[in-house]
Amino acid sequence: MIELNKRQERILQIVKDNGPITGEHIAEQLNLTRATLRPDLAILTMSGFLDARPRVGYFYTGKSGSQLLTDSLNSLIIKDYQSIPVVVTESISVYDAIVTMFLEDVGTLFVVDKNSLLVGVLSRKDLLRASIGKQELSSVPVNVIMTRMPNITMCTKEDLLMDVAKKLIEKQIDALPVVRETDNGFEVTGRITKTNITKAFLSLADSSY
Amino acid sequence: MIELNKRQERILQIVKDNGPITGEHIAEQLNLTRATLRPDLAILTMSGFLDARPRVGYFYTGKSGSQLLTDSLNSLIIKDYQSIPVVVTESISVYDAIVTMFLEDVGTLFVVDKNSLLVGVLSRKDLLRASIGKQELSSVPVNVIMTRMPNITMCTKEDLLMDVAKKLIEKQIDALPVVRETDNGFEVTGRITKTNITKAFLSLADSSY
Repeated sequence: MIELNKRQERILQIVKDNGPITGEHIAEQLNLTRATLRPDLAILTMSGFLDARPRVGYFYTGKSGSQLLTDSLNSLIIKDYQSIPVVVTESISVYDAIVTMFLEDVGTLFVVDKNSLLVGVLSRKDLLRASIGKQELSSVPVNVIMTRMPNITMCTKEDLLMDVAKKLIEKQIDALPVVRETDNGFEVTGRITKTNITKAFLSLADSSY
Repeated sequence: MIELNKRQERILQIVKDNGPITGEHIAEQLNLTRATLRPDLAILTMSGFLDARPRVGYFYTGKSGSQLLTDSLNSLIIKDYQSIPVVVTESISVYDAIVTMFLEDVGTLFVVDKNSLLVGVLSRKDLLRASIGKQELSSVPVNVIMTRMPNITMCTKEDLLMDVAKKLIEKQIDALPVVRETDNGFEVTGRITKTNITKAFLSLADSSY
């Protein structure tokens, strides 16, 4: 969300009252050159207040603040908020997975097969559950305790952050793998967590100042 | 955030152009009775587009959509988003704490003394770290591994959700206790997590439809 300056508010008003109107005619009404107005018109168009059609001119999109909020929430895409994924192979032990989690400082590990394709997900919760079991952590391979395909909830880097936030809440999970589909399975290209969503939430406030 | 109807948009425009202006004069310009306008004026005032002063009339607050977004983000208060806290006493074992975490389905436990005052916090990360240690989990009390006062980041139910979200990110923690200060220490009254923030993020989109 952006803050409009006085001139941008005036342009918006002129287009509301007279649109569709050409950039030239807006400039006339303000006693300014078209070149001077170009940055303001670009900002108003990019932010969704105005729309422009060739040979017709600028018109008001009729969007109120709340519609613009919805639009801007629905324009947040996974690829702009994702983190780097941390992957392990399915043969490593639960003990080594826990150590990896601490070394890499993540709450979720993705498990891949020898072709680097996704086969499982390990959360702190999964590892904690295993840790109170009877077995020796260094002798249990992670593929015994991981969540496995086809029960893994995934997303792609083009998905909406809103839709993924909804999945995290509905399925009560902390993180999703961001994947790319290949002929043989899914490659893990990213990681999206409630931390990423919390950062996106904070950025809403920052960007509106 | 609310969606304005055509009449509300017209009222807003009249107040922008002529404010401060009385409800009576707005009604005149629209050829409507004051009673008809009352709900619209109430909505515009409550949502922050207009302000009203006795014997002066309505005036435009000059807030754009993005300022209203910032205002609405800064009106989100912990007490409306917090969850119920799960507390344990400092003498229970790490093993029992892990079991409690699973039974209560939470990611963070708060540790209290015999007077029910906050003395520590246990995250999944703390418990997982302990689980790869050399010691028997059922013989280690949680007060050996917990984060303890004065290193606990806390908040109150009146705090802004935005400020707490910032703390969760900056301090890289999953949850904060919501506390009430007493003469002897802090009582735990709630729990606020990245899950709560993610839900608040989702509610922004819902409420703007």
